Amino acid sequence: FSQNSDFFLRILTLKSELKKKFTCGCRYVSKAAPKTQLEYDYDGPSMKTSVPGPRSQNVGAVNFFCNYEESRGNYLVDVDNNRMLDVYTQISSIPIGYNHPALLKLMANPNHLSTLVNRPALGILPPENFPDKLTESLLSVSPSGMTRVQTMACGSCSNENAYKAMFIWYRNKERGHNMPSDEDVSTCMINKAPGCPDLSILSFNGGFHGRTMGCLATTHSKAIHKLDVPSFDWPMAPFPRLQYPLEEFTRENAQEEARCLEETEDVIVKWRQKGNPVAGIVIEPIQAEGGDNHASPDFFKGLRNIARKHGCAFHVDEVQTGGGATGKYWAHEHWGMDDPADIVSFSKKLLTGGYYHKDELQPYRIFNTWMGDPSKNLLLAEVLNVIRRENLLEEVTRSGKALLNGLYDLQAQYPGILSRARGQGTFCAIDICDDATRNSILLKARDKGVLLGGCGDRSIRFRPALIFKEYHVHIFLNIFNDVLAEHK
Amino acid sequence: FSQNSDFFLRILTLKSELKKKFTCGCRYVSKAAPKTQLEYDYDGPSMKTSVPGPRSQNVGAVNFFCNYEESRGNYLVDVDNNRMLDVYTQISSIPIGYNHPALLKLMANPNHLSTLVNRPALGILPPENFPDKLTESLLSVSPSGMTRVQTMACGSCSNENAYKAMFIWYRNKERGHNMPSDEDVSTCMINKAPGCPDLSILSFNGGFHGRTMGCLATTHSKAIHKLDVPSFDWPMAPFPRLQYPLEEFTRENAQEEARCLEETEDVIVKWRQKGNPVAGIVIEPIQAEGGDNHASPDFFKGLRNIARKHGCAFHVDEVQTGGGATGKYWAHEHWGMDDPADIVSFSKKLLTGGYYHKDELQPYRIFNTWMGDPSKNLLLAEVLNVIRRENLLEEVTRSGKALLNGLYDLQAQYPGILSRARGQGTFCAIDICDDATRNSILLKARDKGVLLGGCGDRSIRFRPALIFKEYHVHIFLNIFNDVLAEHK
Repeated sequence: FSQNSDFFLRILTLKSELKKKFTCGCRYVSKAAPKTQLEYDYDGPSMKTSVPGPRSQNVGAVNFFCNYEESRGNYLVDVDNNRMLDVYTQISSIPIGYNHPALLKLMANPNHLSTLVNRPALGILPPENFPDKLTESLLSVSPSGMTRVQTMACGSCSNENAYKAMFIWYRNKERGHNMPSDEDVSTCMINKAPGCPDLSILSFNGGFHGRTMGCLATTHSKAIHKLDVPSFDWPMAPFPRLQYPLEEFTRENAQEEARCLEETEDVIVKWRQKGNPVAGIVIEPIQAEGGDNHASPDFFKGLRNIARKHGCAFHVDEVQTGGGATGKYWAHEHWGMDDPADIVSFSKKLLTGGYYHKDELQPYRIFNTWMGDPSKNLLLAEVLNVIRRENLLEEVTRSGKALLNGLYDLQAQYPGILSRARGQGTFCAIDICDDATRNSILLKARDKGVLLGGCGDRSIRFRPALIFKEYHVHIFLNIFNDVLAEHK
Repeated sequence: FSQNSDFFLRILTLKSELKKKFTCGCRYVSKAAPKTQLEYDYDGPSMKTSVPGPRSQNVGAVNFFCNYEESRGNYLVDVDNNRMLDVYTQISSIPIGYNHPALLKLMANPNHLSTLVNRPALGILPPENFPDKLTESLLSVSPSGMTRVQTMACGSCSNENAYKAMFIWYRNKERGHNMPSDEDVSTCMINKAPGCPDLSILSFNGGFHGRTMGCLATTHSKAIHKLDVPSFDWPMAPFPRLQYPLEEFTRENAQEEARCLEETEDVIVKWRQKGNPVAGIVIEPIQAEGGDNHASPDFFKGLRNIARKHGCAFHVDEVQTGGGATGKYWAHEHWGMDDPADIVSFSKKLLTGGYYHKDELQPYRIFNTWMGDPSKNLLLAEVLNVIRRENLLEEVTRSGKALLNGLYDLQAQYPGILSRARGQGTFCAIDICDDATRNSILLKARDKGVLLGGCGDRSIRFRPALIFKEYHVHIFLNIFNDVLAEHK
């Protein structure tokens, strides 16, 4: 009976919704935008089944199986021929959409076959043109103050090795750049200090830096990532919990950031006093997995200054934020600093892992067999060409404004469901009233042809490719509104 | 003066050598073997300059720059057009030589373009055919007792995640497979027990398992890998230090292995008593970086049994040994056990990282963005086709015998320089009298057109591709003999 009455209540609500939608004219209809010329893109979503469909059945942890051959531009096609507007892009790792003609052409060029079949040990036997390829690709978008780059296979390896570079740099300073002692050499072989020193990396509550064991000790976003894995006694400082829109809460947010900076400094002093000094500080310019938490340029400037004051290296992790989605190649460029960081790590949209670093964090002793993959650099160089040729960073800025404004409108329309719309470029997010509603909205949006991802406790994050135009923003907003209308 | 007399002494020695070589008929000439039909291979080395040559200058840590387009089969060509017989193969990571026609053809097939340009987040959105591709490739060579595989980007990530799988498995057992407690969940967020438990991985003196921070805590081959990097209080047990040839020292070696097994068990008990129990044991079937140290099947059986007895998972690290060089896909298959391991990790010659595991070490909670790379699986499937079609494992066994017998001959001829020749398949090594001589021999061999690698304190390791035929063994032996003759 209670189920039945619940059912009737919902029918009534729905009817009232429908009435509102069609009689009061208050259904959200995103203004049309001219379709831009992405000839290889599809016109819009096209759904044949609910997702996962019959051909994706028994998928377990997998969401569904994909037909990457048929996927194009902003649209991911699944094995049941459902075509979804992809606003999640393989956890933010597809820079210029699926099957971009420039990349297909590049890979069809027989001159590149050798790069695809002969993967070198880059640290000892690089290909002839590798320095030039780095100059064309990664070094052409170096963050301010960085002239060197070390490639790696993935994001976790990039951060692990960046941490090692900071530890080695810190110990070199402590030794006055002298040779390690015999005791250093002998103790390190059995995992003991001073050879394996008691040094730490300071990270932030809500931060995510990967899941290998060094990275995981600096990750504090979800328990499921960390549970059951041994860790290091490394300090965690609070990340500012700001109010949005940022410009409406400047005073409150500045207070919150001041509090976090003060606690950060306290933690550094405390860990030094207990004999486990902080060699490096690692932070995301926007905490991504942890819920798209922003902070102001002043906060990051303050943090960089604290790092300098206490002799810690400052590592900006741009694995998720880097590659253009904020409207700049690096999210930390929005801070407007000449000398923002000592190390900047990347992966995902850059297609190869790695990190930029200052000269003094020299990579000698950073080594493994592959140290990256020239075939990924090849793709990246062409991705950067496309970004420049098509002015994609400007496009992202434009699409991002449309997206954020659309989210503000929807938030005003559905205040019981949506709050805290925020973003930079298309790197946007919005909070949902609770976790269950968030997950239900994600699934419903998917069945209507929009693929989204969650982050934090109850946020939805938007991570489209850089070719996500205003046109696509409006397709998304209209479908998202339909989903919200059903939930209201 | 002392330098001069030294110089004359050397000239005299050289003259006496030359006399011996050409008058006594004792110059080693490896018997000719029929050249096999590798049409894409070169005939032999061809050196234009010493290495690194002028075009590779200012190389720093790099050995030299390579021309991978011109490299073929067993021959690596550098930017100065020096062509070297490659017996090191990018730190053992090139399975079937350079520019194998089958791989070039595969990559030229336009049907595979999509796989090259659309790298998925495999854990959530795999391509339609991915399970089939795994069945064709990695699962077609599963080690005994293993039906599941998890791909990863590189060797270190593979081991890191294998360790995590063992920790999660161990804690699940401890919890009686119940849900984690609130205390588990809250403490793990701040890197504290019980959520981040005091658990350890037992590894061996001389072992190498990678350089990310979990892996590095189990690596004990060289100080330069470990120095300045914080580590875990994890136990190290002695790896047997055997006498070679193994069959001539069975009694002594059995005693040494019994000693090591006993100490291993003592260490497990000790670490449990101090509250940091061993969740898993990790070992290489042949310690590679640590100096090509072998142990008998009985030793590994004993170790597996100790792991079972103490409730530890048993992880066999085949990153360097796997992929066919020992004459079997997996070196541990030489142990002849039905149920040899709980986890087997791989990378290098397999072109993708990853690990096989038993059902009970389920990979739920093992996750990252890419989790491997389908484009590498594509290559691997074809590599396995070539191995089968060309019976390369049999070839390796045959070439390996020729190589080891040649090393025994040279060792008899140069007892002052060479000792402890050892190997399985072409996965061979030999010790040189001292580190300086070893390094000098490596450089001289390179200038004569043979590329070799060192391992351990004073070993040379042989890591040719699987297409290294008897014909190539004899080219190598003749050049190696020339180098040794100069050193005698």
